[in-house]
Amino acid sequence: MNGAESLVRTLVGGGVNVCFANPGTSEMHFVAALDRVDGMRCVLGLFEGVVTGAADGYYRMTDNPAATLLHLGPGLANGLANIHNANKAASGMVNIVGDHATYHRQYDAPLTSDIEGLARPSSHWVKTSPNAMGIAADGAAAIAAARMAPGRIATLILPADTAWNEGSGAVSVAPAAKPAPPAPDAVTEAARVLRSGEPTLLLLTGRAVRADGLELAGKIAAKTGARLIAQGSNARTQRGRGRVSVERIPYVVDQALKVLAGLKHVILVGAKMPVAFFAYPDKPSLLTPPDCQGHTLARPEEDLIAALEMLCEEVGARGTPAPVVNDPLPTQAIGAITPEALGASVGALLPDNAIVADEAVTTGRGFFAPTKSANPHDWLSNMGGSIGLGPPLAAGAAVACPDRKVVALQADGSAMYTVQALWTQAREGLDVTTVLFSNRCYQILRGELANVGAGNPGRKALDMLDLGNPDIDWVGLAKSLGVPAARVTDMDGFNRQFAAAVATPGPFLVEVAM
Amino acid sequence: MNGAESLVRTLVGGGVNVCFANPGTSEMHFVAALDRVDGMRCVLGLFEGVVTGAADGYYRMTDNPAATLLHLGPGLANGLANIHNANKAASGMVNIVGDHATYHRQYDAPLTSDIEGLARPSSHWVKTSPNAMGIAADGAAAIAAARMAPGRIATLILPADTAWNEGSGAVSVAPAAKPAPPAPDAVTEAARVLRSGEPTLLLLTGRAVRADGLELAGKIAAKTGARLIAQGSNARTQRGRGRVSVERIPYVVDQALKVLAGLKHVILVGAKMPVAFFAYPDKPSLLTPPDCQGHTLARPEEDLIAALEMLCEEVGARGTPAPVVNDPLPTQAIGAITPEALGASVGALLPDNAIVADEAVTTGRGFFAPTKSANPHDWLSNMGGSIGLGPPLAAGAAVACPDRKVVALQADGSAMYTVQALWTQAREGLDVTTVLFSNRCYQILRGELANVGAGNPGRKALDMLDLGNPDIDWVGLAKSLGVPAARVTDMDGFNRQFAAAVATPGPFLVEVAM
Repeated sequence: MNGAESLVRTLVGGGVNVCFANPGTSEMHFVAALDRVDGMRCVLGLFEGVVTGAADGYYRMTDNPAATLLHLGPGLANGLANIHNANKAASGMVNIVGDHATYHRQYDAPLTSDIEGLARPSSHWVKTSPNAMGIAADGAAAIAAARMAPGRIATLILPADTAWNEGSGAVSVAPAAKPAPPAPDAVTEAARVLRSGEPTLLLLTGRAVRADGLELAGKIAAKTGARLIAQGSNARTQRGRGRVSVERIPYVVDQALKVLAGLKHVILVGAKMPVAFFAYPDKPSLLTPPDCQGHTLARPEEDLIAALEMLCEEVGARGTPAPVVNDPLPTQAIGAITPEALGASVGALLPDNAIVADEAVTTGRGFFAPTKSANPHDWLSNMGGSIGLGPPLAAGAAVACPDRKVVALQADGSAMYTVQALWTQAREGLDVTTVLFSNRCYQILRGELANVGAGNPGRKALDMLDLGNPDIDWVGLAKSLGVPAARVTDMDGFNRQFAAAVATPGPFLVEVAM
Repeated sequence: MNGAESLVRTLVGGGVNVCFANPGTSEMHFVAALDRVDGMRCVLGLFEGVVTGAADGYYRMTDNPAATLLHLGPGLANGLANIHNANKAASGMVNIVGDHATYHRQYDAPLTSDIEGLARPSSHWVKTSPNAMGIAADGAAAIAAARMAPGRIATLILPADTAWNEGSGAVSVAPAAKPAPPAPDAVTEAARVLRSGEPTLLLLTGRAVRADGLELAGKIAAKTGARLIAQGSNARTQRGRGRVSVERIPYVVDQALKVLAGLKHVILVGAKMPVAFFAYPDKPSLLTPPDCQGHTLARPEEDLIAALEMLCEEVGARGTPAPVVNDPLPTQAIGAITPEALGASVGALLPDNAIVADEAVTTGRGFFAPTKSANPHDWLSNMGGSIGLGPPLAAGAAVACPDRKVVALQADGSAMYTVQALWTQAREGLDVTTVLFSNRCYQILRGELANVGAGNPGRKALDMLDLGNPDIDWVGLAKSLGVPAARVTDMDGFNRQFAAAVATPGPFLVEVAM
């Protein structure tokens, strides 16, 4: 059994059952081994950002890493933006990056590059596996690294001769790491703050914004009068009717300052003290008031649920009912298309147990409120700020959860970075409804140009923010990649097309003329 | 004048007149400055691989670097694959990468990453400019680095406060570096080898495969009986009727070994000893016979034309006529579409002074021979082996040379990595005819699977090489991005559509059903 097959068997044995792939020559032995090993689903992406973004979505919905298969340094480079996003989302991922045969590297053939150097900025674990007898053990170590709590990026570089020489056979993988127990002192301190009566916020992220974490936090808030809020972005928030609702810290600095004004304490549940997404002249980087203190209840690598349970106990909130959303379903909007109307209709029509992949950017900033009382759903956000995550994220979530509808709320500018993901959605028959907000500009930058004090833009500056001239025909684009699509120009059309799309299995794209 | 405007004025003053851009918030002051400074053309790409690939094409046709404008680490990461290709092509490029304000980095906001770490593997020069008063000088240093001989990748990281604080005004830029003079001893040694009568090859690349270099090499070969060959890939080869023809070292190892068999000496003119693109079990990495000696006439940073002139003088070939191509134009092929027929028709119909951007991969491997006697043209190849260069390379060449036709010979698999370049071609009205070879698979990998000894592929392996299911509708895809297009299924259709496209200004895509 060669090194490649030893690695594939180690992956499968270690519970890594999906590989998102864009292979090349140096990965051919890995690809060939897929036919000799049962239990690995291999999903092709036509660009590596699709591959890595899909692995992020897969992890978020399974809490288990997928593998990616990438072709040397440039293949990894093409995947790095979404690896950056996954890293910020604490998604586990095992990247297998093929390289030249070890003895061939000295000749500096065209595709030679410093793969480890490229991997390091966004990988927790990086190793070039020097020989075939060791590759399975290195693979097992990579899986163990990816399965830490929270998840991490592991990048295993596989030279061609490490793949083709005789290997060791499969190596067994250590069970996934459990999160570290919370520090009792931190719980005591958080309880003291909550009892102080001073304005206090519980700032949640990670596991704490799943349904169980929110229920515990809701009890604590109800008992103590503390406020709840989530980070601006969160990997996976469970929300909708019957669940404890949580707002997010706004992206816009002035709005965030207003939301956080007057606070004396922030209790951090897997979160950091909130900071502005970008710096702006004459605006602060830190969003909390200067006299506000942060208190860490639990760090990201600690067991957030256990910490909330202990805190619940400590403040005597175990028997306190958590306030859950029981408002009626939102009502579909009619008339002209506006962000508010879209939010209402998405809230009204979102299927039960849907997964929302949110890269709606400016159009979607207000969607959280009107979907608060939608059917129960999971909401996935972009954690690293690199746009072009949405279409692959939706694909990965759909691979992870074939029995759930994925609704991708997608801005046009960001969709263009990884539009190839539509093809993967079509090929795999993934159950993704993409709502494509076609405002034909980088709308966010129009605001940012003013926010950074860059003055009144002229023609050349505005051209750099404009996606028109020519307008992108999203219906034609989706169809050319195998995804059926329709364009809507009013809410009546949107309601009809969106309802039909979510009721029909398989991929569909609704282009919304903004 | 703020730092951003000081930098833009420095770029324009230093002869950097084109900026390929995909900006974000941290670049807004740079974008705003474009309206206050004359002389900078700014070209938007909807994905950063378009931006960097276009800068490569621009350099190859002007010998002068363009700037790129990229958004933090992930924006740079998305551009890295084509920066890798540009680096291997020795194309100069000034990357401006926005970053968070210096004081904001400590807060680890979502887009924070190690930009210098990402830049280093493919950049010759990297600097984060720490303050606005120094940015213009840093910009001048970046331009000087990019304009070395041969060109280099310079990456200048521009923190937001470096852009918005008060700057120094423009700084003047040193003139472009001249290549180093050749070593007289190297010329003497090459002449000695040529006189030895032993089988000798002149291996050319870089400036040596432009028309003047080839003419000199042709005289030397005619006088001494040495053979001429070019590297497997070359940044810009000038060829066609009236020019000295040069073949390339084949990609396929067995073919390359045959071409180089029996040689005793290789005289390197800007080139390295030829190596296999990939390693294969039981095939050598070095392509020359074991007893063949390499002799460096001139290194890449030396003046290749001067070296060839000196060698011409030394072997007494100054008065020897160089053998130039004066065969009749190739004849258009008819009937079924085959690679051979396509090569003939492209050769027959290629307009005078065209620029060929070649990423035809397997379909185009044989195109060099039938285009040998085409109208004079420049041929640009992928030097780094990272596919997805073609569409941006064509765009950049068209920006550089608005009075010349660009013909992009493009495989379908590679086009999908940077398909967004079609939109830029449409927006800028670039004179690019794309011939898209739609074979609906990674055809090269079918061969490589066998070459690396990976055995008979099964269904799962073959699926990873297959771009069908669904088939990509290239006509629909091009039109959705603003590029008119037509599909052809026989050579008659190809001849008609290709002839019409090259006769009509502006972008057009011909999908060739393979």
